[in-house]
Amino acid sequence: MANFTQDSADDVCIATIRTLAADVVGAPMGMAPIAHVLFSRFFNANPKNSKWFNRDRFVLSNGCALQYIMLHLLGYKLSMDDLKQFRQVDSLTPGHPETGHTDGIEVTTGPLGQGFANGVGLGIAQAHLAATFNKDGFDIINNYTYVFTGDGCLMEGVASEAASLAGHLQLGNLIYFYDDNHISIDGDTAVAFTENVEQRFLSYGWQVLHVDDGDRDLEGIYNAVVEAQKRRTSPLLFACEQPSVTAPSSRDTWCSETKFGLPADKTFYVPEDTYKVYAAKKWDALFASYGQKYPKEHAELSRRIAGKLTEGWEKSLPIYKPSDAAQASRKLSEIVLTAITPILPELIGGSADLRAAMIDFQPESTGLGSYKGPRYGCIANGMHAYGGVIPFVATFMNFVSYAAGAVRLSALSKHQVIWVATHDSIGLGEDDCGALPRHANIDFWRPADGNETSAAYYMALTRKHTPSILSLSRQNLPNLEESTLERASKGGYVVLEEQGEELTIVSSGSEVSIALEAAVQLKSEGVKVRVVSLPCWSIFDLQPQEYRLSVLRSGAPILAPFGWQKYSHEQFGMFGWGASGPYKKIYEKFGLTGSNIASVSKKVITFYKQKGGEVVSPLVKAL
Amino acid sequence: MANFTQDSADDVCIATIRTLAADVVGAPMGMAPIAHVLFSRFFNANPKNSKWFNRDRFVLSNGCALQYIMLHLLGYKLSMDDLKQFRQVDSLTPGHPETGHTDGIEVTTGPLGQGFANGVGLGIAQAHLAATFNKDGFDIINNYTYVFTGDGCLMEGVASEAASLAGHLQLGNLIYFYDDNHISIDGDTAVAFTENVEQRFLSYGWQVLHVDDGDRDLEGIYNAVVEAQKRRTSPLLFACEQPSVTAPSSRDTWCSETKFGLPADKTFYVPEDTYKVYAAKKWDALFASYGQKYPKEHAELSRRIAGKLTEGWEKSLPIYKPSDAAQASRKLSEIVLTAITPILPELIGGSADLRAAMIDFQPESTGLGSYKGPRYGCIANGMHAYGGVIPFVATFMNFVSYAAGAVRLSALSKHQVIWVATHDSIGLGEDDCGALPRHANIDFWRPADGNETSAAYYMALTRKHTPSILSLSRQNLPNLEESTLERASKGGYVVLEEQGEELTIVSSGSEVSIALEAAVQLKSEGVKVRVVSLPCWSIFDLQPQEYRLSVLRSGAPILAPFGWQKYSHEQFGMFGWGASGPYKKIYEKFGLTGSNIASVSKKVITFYKQKGGEVVSPLVKAL
Repeated sequence: MANFTQDSADDVCIATIRTLAADVVGAPMGMAPIAHVLFSRFFNANPKNSKWFNRDRFVLSNGCALQYIMLHLLGYKLSMDDLKQFRQVDSLTPGHPETGHTDGIEVTTGPLGQGFANGVGLGIAQAHLAATFNKDGFDIINNYTYVFTGDGCLMEGVASEAASLAGHLQLGNLIYFYDDNHISIDGDTAVAFTENVEQRFLSYGWQVLHVDDGDRDLEGIYNAVVEAQKRRTSPLLFACEQPSVTAPSSRDTWCSETKFGLPADKTFYVPEDTYKVYAAKKWDALFASYGQKYPKEHAELSRRIAGKLTEGWEKSLPIYKPSDAAQASRKLSEIVLTAITPILPELIGGSADLRAAMIDFQPESTGLGSYKGPRYGCIANGMHAYGGVIPFVATFMNFVSYAAGAVRLSALSKHQVIWVATHDSIGLGEDDCGALPRHANIDFWRPADGNETSAAYYMALTRKHTPSILSLSRQNLPNLEESTLERASKGGYVVLEEQGEELTIVSSGSEVSIALEAAVQLKSEGVKVRVVSLPCWSIFDLQPQEYRLSVLRSGAPILAPFGWQKYSHEQFGMFGWGASGPYKKIYEKFGLTGSNIASVSKKVITFYKQKGGEVVSPLVKAL
Repeated sequence: MANFTQDSADDVCIATIRTLAADVVGAPMGMAPIAHVLFSRFFNANPKNSKWFNRDRFVLSNGCALQYIMLHLLGYKLSMDDLKQFRQVDSLTPGHPETGHTDGIEVTTGPLGQGFANGVGLGIAQAHLAATFNKDGFDIINNYTYVFTGDGCLMEGVASEAASLAGHLQLGNLIYFYDDNHISIDGDTAVAFTENVEQRFLSYGWQVLHVDDGDRDLEGIYNAVVEAQKRRTSPLLFACEQPSVTAPSSRDTWCSETKFGLPADKTFYVPEDTYKVYAAKKWDALFASYGQKYPKEHAELSRRIAGKLTEGWEKSLPIYKPSDAAQASRKLSEIVLTAITPILPELIGGSADLRAAMIDFQPESTGLGSYKGPRYGCIANGMHAYGGVIPFVATFMNFVSYAAGAVRLSALSKHQVIWVATHDSIGLGEDDCGALPRHANIDFWRPADGNETSAAYYMALTRKHTPSILSLSRQNLPNLEESTLERASKGGYVVLEEQGEELTIVSSGSEVSIALEAAVQLKSEGVKVRVVSLPCWSIFDLQPQEYRLSVLRSGAPILAPFGWQKYSHEQFGMFGWGASGPYKKIYEKFGLTGSNIASVSKKVITFYKQKGGEVVSPLVKAL
């Protein structure tokens, strides 16, 4: 790459970005010169094929308008009209950029800090796939991830967590531009943020470079990026001070200053030559020749990029008979992972030891029981956004709610991220299931036995656009008589059938076998009860109404745990806080025993008999 | 304070702590020598009056057993039998320490990082009250907050956020002991955590001290604390390396090593003299003489310590007539705060500018619209745990779910923290209300007009042991005909009464006036509809069943927004993701208009008429 020469075209481009920014959001834009240098001199992508796999990734963690403007200038599917529709309903330019919605947007940002941490995920996926597939002379995966970030992001804990990990992993493919303008939404950051950001990033093991005038020192910006790319040994934080933001503050100034034909009276204007400055670069034939020399790897990488699972992988899922030994579902989950990861090496994740995962996936590193900060959620979103991997995060259930911000964005962005979460106590099993984000597009599984655990993985791996949360038990769960992979994959099914029932009990996870105990006791007293296992609400809701009504049928009241009003007439269990102790004692304390549920059941049956009239399934609705 | 002299009693105490730790949790305990020096030489508290206001606060952010042991040795209400019941159901020594449950526990810790950030809240409350009430010669509030923390906590984002703020605020009352043992639950921290912790804390503006042998260098520990207390200009991180943790690893070794009568064959043993080492220190008559010189301040501080609100404060709550101008509820909230903070100066919070809050509460610093990291939740919990203040956090609704971990602990710990949250879009108004943690002991308010906003504050301020979340609108809300402070304070009430109704519509917040529009349209078509406003579920649930049944009565179907299955037969609205755009267009897009709800209402009425039979209130239950 040649040395940097600044010419008049650069000035016109920067003024164009600035005037467009003023037209779109009505405000000046400090990062315009940096964006210009990055996209005109470095950024390697193909706007006509925005999913080209080895493209450089760009994340704007602290805004959106600048990204829309650059996508437009580079020739992505974003027209001038789209820019004019900024923040309007159904436009391609919503107030926060959304992946899958707007061409060229890699990750959904908005909540501060998320984009910063997504970038680390993009970097981890790149490093992992490069370690797996690159060969001597075939650097087929070697892109950079460029992130623009500001004080607001750096104040967020997830950004701190992710930065520490990126330094630890020496992710030399990350180049972060820090807009050091001392301004946040509250005004001057000095009111709450006076730390030494550069020293902090040095402490994480980042390389830190600084340019005093991020507004005018284009050569300084250029040289810093060249320097970082030469080393590629650690992530780079490039602090760009903006001392001159006050100087050329109006549209008019920018137009007249450049003297290159930017009309002051015409908004949303781009000189034709400006588009050419950002003309697309092409990928070469490297990947094809790689395929000739390494056909196996080529096929494997192509499969993973296409997001196709290895044919017949599902045959590796463990299947259980009722007589098989009872096991904790967190153990059952480990068995599934050990069985399928050799066939699905794109399943990456798990423990804090992501370095091992980067080089070669180690099933033993799935290490359930690892604690996690919220960073793992954002990083997993970034990894999925990169492609070629399916990230999973193994943690305690409580830490899933810790990462609520990231889970929300997984669902919104349609990232296939799998949360493998162990219960910590009944407090977490009952309360915190209810406390999990109830977003659209999340599959929350609470398997009751071995086949249901396999079904949860089967669905989580085939639902390409939906994150899944698997809530797993510490205590042993007996295998149910009626559970099969196929039935459990429907999200809900009958585990104890009975004609002319007086009650149906619906439950999930460890409570299903307790419901069955209650049913056995009731049968001995001559009371007819059906039992339904409903391990995943959202998957059950996808089944045809006819099937759902056959499971949760009219004719007798339906009893379910607290919080299940949607599927039942009456609810049992607790609403309150759990307690600390051995699980059997806790279950007794909160009445989650067969005999207590049997006695609750009798109350419900009596109540509905006295009430009289037809008992209609709660699924029968007007709307 | 004299220089440090180590004698044999110190050795016996440390060995006692270690053997007790081995008895309680079966593991050695690295921090025993530090705990001993702290509690024998510095810690200023009164175990016989654990709520004495100027006590030093202690937070064990990275464990629990050590704290139970020290509380026992110091003479708090925690017996040897309690120690033996560690982690048992209903014991005073649960797996995570809980404030309000065990004498002497200041904050509920457990989830990593929370205790760290709580400590910053304890420090802010101290600094604020000292600035408000201390006088020359009357340092009545001058305690320290001591926190034990480890690598697991320091890896968490909330700890980073809180540390940055503590450095910014120069909280010299914070002394943090960092257990630098390079061990986390995953094993050696080197697998994921290789940052330079000390450099990082220097970047935040902390003082950092280091002792190479936190296991044996008692004098070094002592001198470091003395040094930090002399300066009191910035928070202290005291890194205590534990190079010798491998050395005396067994009970037997500790017993024989000390040669002071610790019997190897007797578990749960404490030499009588050891209790005396930690004998309580007394508070002097300073506060009484302060009261003679400054009777007004004395009375005010006494009131705040007692947690009593200023008599008649509620008369300052704004009251509205139906004819008063429609306003956004976030504006209504600001009006409430401006009206009541002069009378209730203990209401502290708000914007990022906590420094201003520390010196003198500024109503204008309530600045809605500030962004926040999760730290503010943990810090507010710590502030409430300190006492004398009622913290509120003003933020976007989305950031409340960002802080889900802290909200959960507010509820569990019964901290009166008030979240004042503005909607960001309908996506947040509809979805994220459903996505908020559904814990026991949280009041979630969604006021529909001025009086409901005042009612939300009235209840939030009088519910001393419950956190409240106020979800506020950006758009103007007309004042309802039937709303009064008293009625709204019941959590739910009829806003449009109608005899012989064919339908009741229940709603909250901005949707109540839309429901009223629907009712007006339906009335013009001859359809009789009642409308109920239900701004707070949990408060409504506290009302007598008779009242609740009069509001949500049997006889006609009840229609409510999606997610309100508990209170309705049918649900309207969306389940999915919001969109970006002006709010009126968004409401139209999602069918939240009077005419659409009117047409939905007619479907429901027709359906229930065709179905026939009695329509029973969803509140009528067997259980």
